[in-house]
Amino acid sequence: MDNLQLSDNTHGSSASTDDGSEVEAIKIYGLSNYYFYSKPAPPLKNQTLEERVCCLKTRYDVYGMRTSVEAVILVELSNTPHLLLLQVRNSTYKLPGGRLRPGESDVEGLKRKLMNKLSVQCDGIFPDWEVGECLGRWWRVGFETLLLPYLPPNVRSPKECRKIFLVKLPERQKFTVPKTHKLLVVPLSQIHENHEIYGPVISGVPQLLSKFPVEIVNR
Amino acid sequence: MDNLQLSDNTHGSSASTDDGSEVEAIKIYGLSNYYFYSKPAPPLKNQTLEERVCCLKTRYDVYGMRTSVEAVILVELSNTPHLLLLQVRNSTYKLPGGRLRPGESDVEGLKRKLMNKLSVQCDGIFPDWEVGECLGRWWRVGFETLLLPYLPPNVRSPKECRKIFLVKLPERQKFTVPKTHKLLVVPLSQIHENHEIYGPVISGVPQLLSKFPVEIVNR
Repeated sequence: MDNLQLSDNTHGSSASTDDGSEVEAIKIYGLSNYYFYSKPAPPLKNQTLEERVCCLKTRYDVYGMRTSVEAVILVELSNTPHLLLLQVRNSTYKLPGGRLRPGESDVEGLKRKLMNKLSVQCDGIFPDWEVGECLGRWWRVGFETLLLPYLPPNVRSPKECRKIFLVKLPERQKFTVPKTHKLLVVPLSQIHENHEIYGPVISGVPQLLSKFPVEIVNR
Repeated sequence: MDNLQLSDNTHGSSASTDDGSEVEAIKIYGLSNYYFYSKPAPPLKNQTLEERVCCLKTRYDVYGMRTSVEAVILVELSNTPHLLLLQVRNSTYKLPGGRLRPGESDVEGLKRKLMNKLSVQCDGIFPDWEVGECLGRWWRVGFETLLLPYLPPNVRSPKECRKIFLVKLPERQKFTVPKTHKLLVVPLSQIHENHEIYGPVISGVPQLLSKFPVEIVNR
């Protein structure tokens, strides 16, 4: 085994904050450790923006605020951390995840979404997903407004809360990706502040990850 | 005592991530709980950009990579979290903090900087500062390049690392501010994505804070 420390020569596998608490390094493995298959998918909903807003409104009346959970998953390529993204219709980029069911917990829901969208059964069972800490939360204040990383004053009924979690991959794993989606790995340098392509949530992920040392494990 | 929960009606004073780990709420107090005095200051260095780069280079040759530490400090105003910022020359905005001395720890250095810049002696002693977790790190790859929240591949000798820490204020405190600086409190909504005014580090602070519930304590 060859543990190659990412080109971050100022610390070991954890970054000490000197107050006794340490930020644990994220261990990542090479992209070639993972296998990707495609699978048939139900046809994509060709919803217009108006239809999406209408759906959000209808569900809000029944269930209240929507909670979505999304995963930040890293792999190594060219000695650099890359983020796993799904691309729909050659245009929209998404973190893997989705909407919680009423009463479902964040971790339970995120595991369900990742299993449904990306997992392959091995020996009759689905692999477990290691959901780590919450990195950030974004709020949708009105049905048609953009997501914000804070709740503006006096907003008592936000329409959606989107929570971003760190998800750590095991050394090896197989994935299936619905045929309607592309799975991409994108370097953090391409994502950082690239709102136009990736939107506000994804383009902020490099900042949310910046406190973590990254340990690239080559085996 | 009246504990007023910030207009974030989806959780109590901590946000459960359902995996046993909880994100502890940041307790903040009203701006009127704090007193601000001004104090004389040594004249501002009127360094040009070239002089600053030259100084960074000279110190790099002697001490290696510069490490800077900065504080994210919140207070309540109009029922909303506001960030404490220093303004120099009516233009540049800065988080309170500064450069570590060689061999100094992050927390020790940040406490020294906050004490020197903002503290008032009470009964002959300076109040302690509660330095919390590291929220993010930014890297300067070359002497004249911008800060980035990741280390690009193959960079083995970054010139500066800037670390951002959460610093929690006690219920009451007195501050002194050098006459050359203004101390401002700015709502997160004004800072978010406002690169042009606040620069990349400060404008990303709302995202770095978004995972924390904020508990406004009114006494």
